[in-house]
Amino acid sequence: MPEIHAGRRAALREQLRERELDALLVTDLLNIRYLTGFTGSNAALLVDAEGEAGTLFCTDGRYTTQAASQVPDLQRVIERASALALVRRADAEAMRYSATGFESQHVSVEQHAGLAEATANLRLRRAPGLVERLRAVKDATEVDALRQACAAADQALADLLAQGGLRPGRTERQVARELEDRMLDHGSEGPSFTTIVAAGVNSAIPHHRPTDAVLATGDFVKLDFGATVAGYHSDMTRTVVLGEAAAWQRDLYALVHRAQAAGCAALRPGVDGVAVDKAARDVIAEAGHGEDFSHGLGHGVGLQVHEAPSLAATAAGTLSAGMAVTVEPGVYLAGRGGVRIEDTLVVREDTPEVLTLSTKELVVV
Amino acid sequence: MPEIHAGRRAALREQLRERELDALLVTDLLNIRYLTGFTGSNAALLVDAEGEAGTLFCTDGRYTTQAASQVPDLQRVIERASALALVRRADAEAMRYSATGFESQHVSVEQHAGLAEATANLRLRRAPGLVERLRAVKDATEVDALRQACAAADQALADLLAQGGLRPGRTERQVARELEDRMLDHGSEGPSFTTIVAAGVNSAIPHHRPTDAVLATGDFVKLDFGATVAGYHSDMTRTVVLGEAAAWQRDLYALVHRAQAAGCAALRPGVDGVAVDKAARDVIAEAGHGEDFSHGLGHGVGLQVHEAPSLAATAAGTLSAGMAVTVEPGVYLAGRGGVRIEDTLVVREDTPEVLTLSTKELVVV
Repeated sequence: MPEIHAGRRAALREQLRERELDALLVTDLLNIRYLTGFTGSNAALLVDAEGEAGTLFCTDGRYTTQAASQVPDLQRVIERASALALVRRADAEAMRYSATGFESQHVSVEQHAGLAEATANLRLRRAPGLVERLRAVKDATEVDALRQACAAADQALADLLAQGGLRPGRTERQVARELEDRMLDHGSEGPSFTTIVAAGVNSAIPHHRPTDAVLATGDFVKLDFGATVAGYHSDMTRTVVLGEAAAWQRDLYALVHRAQAAGCAALRPGVDGVAVDKAARDVIAEAGHGEDFSHGLGHGVGLQVHEAPSLAATAAGTLSAGMAVTVEPGVYLAGRGGVRIEDTLVVREDTPEVLTLSTKELVVV
Repeated sequence: MPEIHAGRRAALREQLRERELDALLVTDLLNIRYLTGFTGSNAALLVDAEGEAGTLFCTDGRYTTQAASQVPDLQRVIERASALALVRRADAEAMRYSATGFESQHVSVEQHAGLAEATANLRLRRAPGLVERLRAVKDATEVDALRQACAAADQALADLLAQGGLRPGRTERQVARELEDRMLDHGSEGPSFTTIVAAGVNSAIPHHRPTDAVLATGDFVKLDFGATVAGYHSDMTRTVVLGEAAAWQRDLYALVHRAQAAGCAALRPGVDGVAVDKAARDVIAEAGHGEDFSHGLGHGVGLQVHEAPSLAATAAGTLSAGMAVTVEPGVYLAGRGGVRIEDTLVVREDTPEVLTLSTKELVVV
């Protein structure tokens, strides 16, 4: 693993040089995890644009042993006020670090005031999103973690269905808990986000949270859930019908299914997020349900369940090979029910790689 | 509930007037929940120092219905960029809102730059921690939620012990999962934080995370866990011994038990956090284990599992009646084992009210 983190820091240094920064103060804990492998709850990292020798990692005394094991390849400083400690050190060598960037989208105004007070010589420069940009494109290790997380979710759903866990009489809450439990059985470190189980009319609420509502014959049941493995998040939605599917349910399902396929087919390097969203949205709009698809098509997934890039009408930027994203169109008919179908995929040069492998045919249980 | 939230906003207005602020832009979601009851994932609130009429709540279209139901008593604005929308409105009436504060410990430098750009007339002023100060003192509704969360954790531990869930051969991970599961059975919305189960030598690691390490006869097993009810967090640690307790284990346990009692006894309005910490720490230091108690004595609990006030050598401020805190001394002997005993309590005029009721006598299972 140390080589992987060193490689990521090298990629970050290229960005620093492009922006004429001598160093970057990294304070976001997920960015620090990405760049060093450290998983503790207090840390800061000063990445020297010149190389590893001047790069400093700081955490507090609780993590001395853990830091030595997780970050063996960097000079380590043990101090409680980690960001302040590193800024002071950079300030003492202000000649070398005159242009030091900081993660201005993560550092609060109050924290920034404290850091600025501690610097006599250097001026901190706003440098938002540099590590996030790197994180958007996943390497093989990351895709492997995502694949395992997606597999845990697939297996949990298979278990739930095989053991009759989805049946009239159970509550949304019971089903949600069982899904989360099964994911743990299959190696998940914990749910990727609050599991959504939405039955009957509740399935028309895009982000419904499980209640004591009881599943009934004829219901759509929308299941949106994910697992985490090595810190990486999976995200999948499937919608099933209990008992027998009515004609309107089959039609609605087929429509969303087609839209989802169109979205997946549009995923290619160089395409922008707006175009992918449009590919799926057009299918739904042509069927007269444009107004009933009230959210974006998808989002990046990785160390966070929502990260760059965005696939939406307002998205900025184009896709690259290696980006991991969700494609999740939905049509929600208030008072009747809704369908959402969502996969996690990796953008590849040709066809995208689907990581969530549960069937997308309509399942009637 | 609306009266409760209106009362909290009234208390905040007193603080605004003391600080000569015309309004406060609240952007932290927990602070918004505290002041309005809203539980969605996007919102902003402009609290007008003059009263409810000028006070505005903003969220996006996903939450139109939810906001109408949870925040019926305030003027509601539906816009995606919620903080920006409210700042623009305040800016349009800059005569009235010339001194508008913002939560500078929550707003990032980047977000602040965006807000500042949108204001032609008013200048935003740093106003950190105003709502947090109110939140530190709990009202009856909040104590009730904390009491229920603590009861769920107590009952989960009782179930675990009654059903032989703590026995040689099980792994730390299995025990952690069972505790979390039992808390759900007893009404928890989810774990308050990542459950700690630390057996044998692992019990000497203050914040050990559960592994596949197997529990063995003679082990200390340290259990640190909590439930959430209505968003409020409980926090409790108990340390038990498997099989038979050795003399050094009984001595260590008795020491921490005495220190914990001394800490609880020191909890009174007007006492400062440093003094409470010292009351427990002195007991441990006098026994020659000062170096082995490597963290603060406790912290406030509420909508966050760690919030104001702090009970530590570096704590600022004094206690007030109604504050909810943990008291959790520990002694950790590297390579041998450790003991921590922790309660969640409410500071009262006389004796503090203990919310976590599991026995603190040494349990040998």
